[in-house]
Amino acid sequence: MVETTEHAPAAPEPKYWHLRTVLLRAIDSEFGIGQVIPNERELAARFGVARATLRQALDQLELEGRLVRRRGIGTLVAAPRTTVPVSRAEEGWPGAAPDTAWRIVDCTTAPATDRLAQALGVPAGESVHTVRRLRVTGGQVVGTESLHVPDSTVAHLPGIVSGAGSGRSVLRQLQHLELAGESRAVELGVAEAEEARLMQRPPGTPVLVVTTQYAARGRIAALAVSTYRADTCRLSFGETGLVEVAPVESALAGVRAS
Amino acid sequence: MVETTEHAPAAPEPKYWHLRTVLLRAIDSEFGIGQVIPNERELAARFGVARATLRQALDQLELEGRLVRRRGIGTLVAAPRTTVPVSRAEEGWPGAAPDTAWRIVDCTTAPATDRLAQALGVPAGESVHTVRRLRVTGGQVVGTESLHVPDSTVAHLPGIVSGAGSGRSVLRQLQHLELAGESRAVELGVAEAEEARLMQRPPGTPVLVVTTQYAARGRIAALAVSTYRADTCRLSFGETGLVEVAPVESALAGVRAS
Repeated sequence: MVETTEHAPAAPEPKYWHLRTVLLRAIDSEFGIGQVIPNERELAARFGVARATLRQALDQLELEGRLVRRRGIGTLVAAPRTTVPVSRAEEGWPGAAPDTAWRIVDCTTAPATDRLAQALGVPAGESVHTVRRLRVTGGQVVGTESLHVPDSTVAHLPGIVSGAGSGRSVLRQLQHLELAGESRAVELGVAEAEEARLMQRPPGTPVLVVTTQYAARGRIAALAVSTYRADTCRLSFGETGLVEVAPVESALAGVRAS
Repeated sequence: MVETTEHAPAAPEPKYWHLRTVLLRAIDSEFGIGQVIPNERELAARFGVARATLRQALDQLELEGRLVRRRGIGTLVAAPRTTVPVSRAEEGWPGAAPDTAWRIVDCTTAPATDRLAQALGVPAGESVHTVRRLRVTGGQVVGTESLHVPDSTVAHLPGIVSGAGSGRSVLRQLQHLELAGESRAVELGVAEAEEARLMQRPPGTPVLVVTTQYAARGRIAALAVSTYRADTCRLSFGETGLVEVAPVESALAGVRAS
């Protein structure tokens, strides 16, 4: 029953897009996860397309996490994406998650830039501790995080020495705060040089950028900016009260296209 | 203070990536939002790069939502991304959001495919109502949604005639259910042909795919699969208790790179 009829002009279907759909069907029916698919020359011949068109379709399928290119090996059928929980219910306060989920890279203390100060709601120039961590899932680094904590968030707690910047102490101090709330945003980005290096990927790799403001005692207590590999990760925001039926990640493949 | 030293090999910086960073700096300092930047020939000459490299850098900046190509006009500096709230706190049950936020396209009723049945936790072949809606922000269509509601979710409520499939009635009936919880996942995808048509974009446009399972009365009452334009949208998951300091979207540009 059509309630509102949309008369959008049919978008022209680019050639590579048609090929991508055909390739996807071939991959699903002929190859298993981890199998190497034929090389570009063979595929271009089989489907009767130019190499440039083929490459565009392969790029697309790599972005979608369906194919993965390995230097010296070829193009493989990718494993399904890894579900990485990012909600507080599953994560707790920064640092409360099991040690295996996060690995501290380093911690630096510096005066806040204007932009960082604005995002944290502190005066420009206030000392901010930045803890860099890696997100590890199944032994694989899947993301990076910069956790910015104003000195005023942790300075007045007993036991912390002002200016002391070890990542582990900052995280320990955070766990003593009572969290009032949090706000989270997700968008598409690309890995900057340093983030890419930490994930051992080339710069420009598509990432899901998650920005979280943590509030405590009536102000922003910490700001986390995380990047997760968009090709291999699905982020889950588990919430309370949900019955455990088929987890959506295992059951959903194909629901959209069908 | 380095707690764990990572000795990842420095990833090679591709040529287009260096150019992308240089371009971004030029855009930020020389052009305002909505301004047309020089054409490809001029840019390639100015930066002394091949057209192919330039195009790769421009593609990247378009994916990042910094540039937008308009046929017959050229390449423009894009407006900042639109923040689209997707959490239940702001949205309510499907259909409880203001009419201006969602526009119903159509509603169909059909037996569940195996995959959809599995995702909904219902027997294969059960009748499922699928309401398709467009997400509208600032008069612009920014996303599409397919909301799948098993007939058993709405059939036993007073007032609904089994099999009656108007989108508006299905949504009205959903609002009578008491929601027990929800689970949400976000990942990168590309717009399939029909989704692309509804958003008036070419197929293959990068989208953020949001999958939400809504639970009520001990089972999955509905499953929503939404796609949001990844170039122009940032999804926000507002939660309770957060103080209103500088909203992160306005303050954060540049925090990552700095």
